[in-house]
Amino acid sequence: MNETKARQIVLAARPHGRPKLSDFRLEETAIPTPSAEQILLRVQYLSLDPYMRGRMDDRKSYAKPVSIGDVMEGESVAEVIASKHPTYSEGDIVLARTGWRTHALSDRADLRKLDPAVAPVTTGLGVFGMPGFTAYSGLRVIGKPKPGETVVVAAASGPVGSLVGQLAKIDGARAVGIAGGSAKCAYVKNELRFDAAIDHRAADFPSQLAAACPNGIDVYFENVGGAIWQAVLPLLNKFARVPVCGLIAQYNGVGRGDGTDRLPATMREVLSKSLTLRGFINYEFAAEYYPAFLREVGAGIADGRIRYREDFVDGLENAPEAFIGMLEGRNFGKLIVRVAG
Amino acid sequence: MNETKARQIVLAARPHGRPKLSDFRLEETAIPTPSAEQILLRVQYLSLDPYMRGRMDDRKSYAKPVSIGDVMEGESVAEVIASKHPTYSEGDIVLARTGWRTHALSDRADLRKLDPAVAPVTTGLGVFGMPGFTAYSGLRVIGKPKPGETVVVAAASGPVGSLVGQLAKIDGARAVGIAGGSAKCAYVKNELRFDAAIDHRAADFPSQLAAACPNGIDVYFENVGGAIWQAVLPLLNKFARVPVCGLIAQYNGVGRGDGTDRLPATMREVLSKSLTLRGFINYEFAAEYYPAFLREVGAGIADGRIRYREDFVDGLENAPEAFIGMLEGRNFGKLIVRVAG
Repeated sequence: MNETKARQIVLAARPHGRPKLSDFRLEETAIPTPSAEQILLRVQYLSLDPYMRGRMDDRKSYAKPVSIGDVMEGESVAEVIASKHPTYSEGDIVLARTGWRTHALSDRADLRKLDPAVAPVTTGLGVFGMPGFTAYSGLRVIGKPKPGETVVVAAASGPVGSLVGQLAKIDGARAVGIAGGSAKCAYVKNELRFDAAIDHRAADFPSQLAAACPNGIDVYFENVGGAIWQAVLPLLNKFARVPVCGLIAQYNGVGRGDGTDRLPATMREVLSKSLTLRGFINYEFAAEYYPAFLREVGAGIADGRIRYREDFVDGLENAPEAFIGMLEGRNFGKLIVRVAG
Repeated sequence: MNETKARQIVLAARPHGRPKLSDFRLEETAIPTPSAEQILLRVQYLSLDPYMRGRMDDRKSYAKPVSIGDVMEGESVAEVIASKHPTYSEGDIVLARTGWRTHALSDRADLRKLDPAVAPVTTGLGVFGMPGFTAYSGLRVIGKPKPGETVVVAAASGPVGSLVGQLAKIDGARAVGIAGGSAKCAYVKNELRFDAAIDHRAADFPSQLAAACPNGIDVYFENVGGAIWQAVLPLLNKFARVPVCGLIAQYNGVGRGDGTDRLPATMREVLSKSLTLRGFINYEFAAEYYPAFLREVGAGIADGRIRYREDFVDGLENAPEAFIGMLEGRNFGKLIVRVAG
């Protein structure tokens, strides 16, 4: 890899609704040189995740927005290609928040080193990384399914949803997955071994979901919102728990809907069923639960009890198109850009 | 009281929106006679509470609706005037779910006997009864205010809101009350000693509320919903807790609003601020917390640290009008119908 230039993708314009390719711009820059205590990283795999859509808006959220002209944020699997930091050596493979770029400097001492002998390094971007820990912490800390209860999760073929259902099964609960299209549903049911998988594109989706949850829903792991929440709401049982980690259905939303205010109905159910809705960001639970997550999910990946699927796209320049497609559910499994490697 | 007839108020018709007087009907019946293990109760004070509006609708909630022609549900302070039950004697004063009537039979062994030496018996319908325990359990079990945090509650001059704020102060938090009109606000600030009281009828209510909460809101005790929730939402801090015990603003609601779907904005805040919304009914916490409530609030009433206000209406026949007025905030303090006594 005798490259002479680095490449990066910056936010060119703030999207209004669905992002367009022109909202991104590919730039060439010089490959940076590490100073004291720094390492130079060469990105191998870039993770694309729904939360990035929020960073493109100029709106206060749990994290600051990306500024126009700045490199898009993101996490990657990267190789240390030069090191002036005592913790890292050339050749180390680490998880790092490099952003959408080929090369990055870091002076952090807390990067997670990835050992390919434990699990394929790309799982550090999915089931064995941030998305997986989102599933793990939301389900175990907030959802707390009891044996025999019913757990429902959407985007069930993705890195968060797939682990939510598999952990629910490990906990003795019934797992019902929601996904888009028959191929994803077949994967969720047959490969991930959920008890049922429902296609949210079906015209009778709400009644199919009801039929798949004959005892109601005790835990709904919310990562989409929108029409799926409307189908879930009447099925929630008394004292149901709703960890809220994402709302992908409304990230691109700009319209006023059909004129119905759906807040009163949701609040009425919260009240009459003693529901718990709890928003969370995985890292708020990291100090307490990350070691247990690594142990349990690492073992599950190793012995095949925990399965996952990755969807690779080649080339940093194709990240914007892949990202736009992901927001519409066009990926199948954890979406990863192969940047080099 | 040598009455020869009992009187009762039944649900005559299901209201559409705001209840009308014609939705209720006053009936005369024979005074019932207790059989073995029964007591005959003469109602002294009937409690009127917002939850009763929900019972008038034919909609599944945490409790069954009142059927057309059935006596309206409700709790009262009543005197035992005849007893064939070993636990009760003539002259005992008890809290009982008699409904809106002058006389009722009961065979329950778990009625709470009221001792006027501990607290005025009418407080058993308000600050020292169900509304008070709603405040206590919602605040202590779900809200969990820490010293220095800000607690906001609406209907702050009522039996729930007034205790929420006073307990918050006892816990070292800052208490901000919301009430309708200057008289109620003055009472909340001066008598109940909240840190601030805001009139939700003021044109600039949202900015007044923001000014009264310079450090944001950590606990919002939700008992109204509607426009007040919209003003509270942007002020909530990261990790804020929202016990939801009532939604009086939407109980009479039948319209479609102004065409704005407010659910996405609420869910976005739940997600980005890691909010907890938790609906509850006070009795789910009774086994664990009622004894502590009686101890703490009883002592607070006795030593004057906990204050309350009662709004009396004379005569069972006037209960419907008083109830309709309460749903519009026309009462000032805990609304009680003096039935006899």
